[in-house]
Amino acid sequence: MRFVLVHGSWHDARCWGAVRDFLETQGHETHALTLPGNGERANPAVTMSETARAVTDFIEERDLRDVILVGHSFGGAVVQLAAPGVPGRLKRLVFYNAYVIEHGRSVFSYVPESVAGAFQALASPDGTLTLPFAFFRDHLMNDADHATAVAAYALLSPEPLARSAEPLDLTGFDTLPVPRSYLYAYGDNVFPAAEFTWHPGMSKRLGDFRLVVIPGGHELMFSDPKALGRGLVTAGQD
Amino acid sequence: MRFVLVHGSWHDARCWGAVRDFLETQGHETHALTLPGNGERANPAVTMSETARAVTDFIEERDLRDVILVGHSFGGAVVQLAAPGVPGRLKRLVFYNAYVIEHGRSVFSYVPESVAGAFQALASPDGTLTLPFAFFRDHLMNDADHATAVAAYALLSPEPLARSAEPLDLTGFDTLPVPRSYLYAYGDNVFPAAEFTWHPGMSKRLGDFRLVVIPGGHELMFSDPKALGRGLVTAGQD
Amino acid sequence: MRFVLVHGSWHDARCWGAVRDFLETQGHETHALTLPGNGERANPAVTMSETARAVTDFIEERDLRDVILVGHSFGGAVVQLAAPGVPGRLKRLVFYNAYVIEHGRSVFSYVPESVAGAFQALASPDGTLTLPFAFFRDHLMNDADHATAVAAYALLSPEPLARSAEPLDLTGFDTLPVPRSYLYAYGDNVFPAAEFTWHPGMSKRLGDFRLVVIPGGHELMFSDPKALGRGLVTAGQD
Repeated sequence: MRFVLVHGSWHDARCWGAVRDFLETQGHETHALTLPGNGERANPAVTMSETARAVTDFIEERDLRDVILVGHSFGGAVVQLAAPGVPGRLKRLVFYNAYVIEHGRSVFSYVPESVAGAFQALASPDGTLTLPFAFFRDHLMNDADHATAVAAYALLSPEPLARSAEPLDLTGFDTLPVPRSYLYAYGDNVFPAAEFTWHPGMSKRLGDFRLVVIPGGHELMFSDPKALGRGLVTAGQD
Repeated sequence: MRFVLVHGSWHDARCWGAVRDFLETQGHETHALTLPGNGERANPAVTMSETARAVTDFIEERDLRDVILVGHSFGGAVVQLAAPGVPGRLKRLVFYNAYVIEHGRSVFSYVPESVAGAFQALASPDGTLTLPFAFFRDHLMNDADHATAVAAYALLSPEPLARSAEPLDLTGFDTLPVPRSYLYAYGDNVFPAAEFTWHPGMSKRLGDFRLVVIPGGHELMFSDPKALGRGLVTAGQD
Repeated sequence: MRFVLVHGSWHDARCWGAVRDFLETQGHETHALTLPGNGERANPAVTMSETARAVTDFIEERDLRDVILVGHSFGGAVVQLAAPGVPGRLKRLVFYNAYVIEHGRSVFSYVPESVAGAFQALASPDGTLTLPFAFFRDHLMNDADHATAVAAYALLSPEPLARSAEPLDLTGFDTLPVPRSYLYAYGDNVFPAAEFTWHPGMSKRLGDFRLVVIPGGHELMFSDPKALGRGLVTAGQD
């Protein structure tokens, strides 16, 4: 299988290191890009169009075909926007605890009020948000030990906020004839479960999809990369 | 323990092969019948009464006592209808991701609109429904690999639709003094989770029941028969 | 890590035996008390104030610091009431399938109607409730075998009912600057899942908290003490 891995907010391509090692040991091919705006490509003014085009450019420049296109968290909306640009190159879309949003809405429009307020309050003047360690520890790395959380945190960088407030033109995603899977790790604690769910809250917008449910939280690439790798194979295979 | 295993739609007695092997290796006794209307007993005009009577006849002809009567999926409604006919022979009822329906309603009345329409559209002129492989693969065998899904699909046969539209007389089920268990595999993807749940959606109609929750999907008899066997023992034991 | 373990209704300090053995083998320090009103401290007239004060006295008398204070089931409300009395000694609160209630309400006010009626009907003239084995077996020990359920049942004693009907003054709990975790075992069957959930139903009242989700039911101290021990470490660590 040929995976193209699209990271979420605060992350960059390095987050997939251990997952890629596992998948390649199992005989799979993996590719990962750092989205514009993130990591060494920091840019507070980056747009969703630029972000999605980076994914399609990445696939086209390498002439990749039969791609399992994976989006994590914020990366789900990027996959939604990018996929209709390279339909013939895609074998399946896989969303791992990822946003699946509706045409005309923004990613932020789905963030629960209780968290959105905190995000606004923490925003930097340059329009980026640095995730506080305490939030990362208890909400994203809740299934890990402290040392793993610290090591993962060292790989994060400020997230540009503007693009997540853009209403997205998702024309073409709903009717895109590419099979979809939702990989749901049920121990996720990013947002309050009484207000928000990845599955079925986000997954239901995929229409017809394969569901794969596994233990663990939002950052299995750090807390249990082999489990994430196995989940991606179950979700992505024929 | 003595299990009598009642299959669901599209299945026949052969579906339990690997589960029976596992249970018998563990010292249990197992029995499985093919319901009238299914498999080699194909009959589009079969009724729910005939279906349920086949279960009670099967138990009485073999003079089985202390039976753990297991219903899977559609087989749950069959167990509901059959159990009051042989109350003295039953030790416990076990429902595995199975329908538990209300007096006076049909099985189909619980199928979400989004799926019911597809089922109607796919029905054959003879009144049976052949499950499309793509649906089986992503919705029922979502936790399996492709080869396992293909092998399982080869054991399916067309399901007679008429009986699932029959309103059922379930007088006697609610007050039947036989303990009940619900074995819930949480990775099930048969119906959209935003519209339908086996647990607690179906299980709640059992009244007082033992809950057993395990990983996996709707077809653990194929995707992980040992896990299903262990779950049946946990659900069925004293 | 230094754990102080607060049991739930019908239990006493002995319930933690195997969990303590596991945790201490892993290098942790554990303490457990029998709440007044339970076990050898039986007293139908015990109040919530007396119950909570027993916890703070226990911690202060031993001069314990950096305490991970764990509450199970009813013990969650005891932890809520006790914690503001010893804030400087607490490192983190951990709730394991535990009540987290609102200021001015009683524990019983959260019990689903269907179960509350049964509890009232079963109450003894002395104001205690003895848990029937059949309920304990299928609702609390649903993930265990019969022998384990019998052995655990032998450790139970009548629960004084009056304190659970007391509206609690929880001033100070919401603003207590002590981190919180909710350890959720998803196979719990204490109350009907269609009417009641530990997570997110109870957990959501913690405000900001770390979630840890594990398999199993309400009595992992008996059915799988190592799994509970591992869960407590994941929930309680920095």
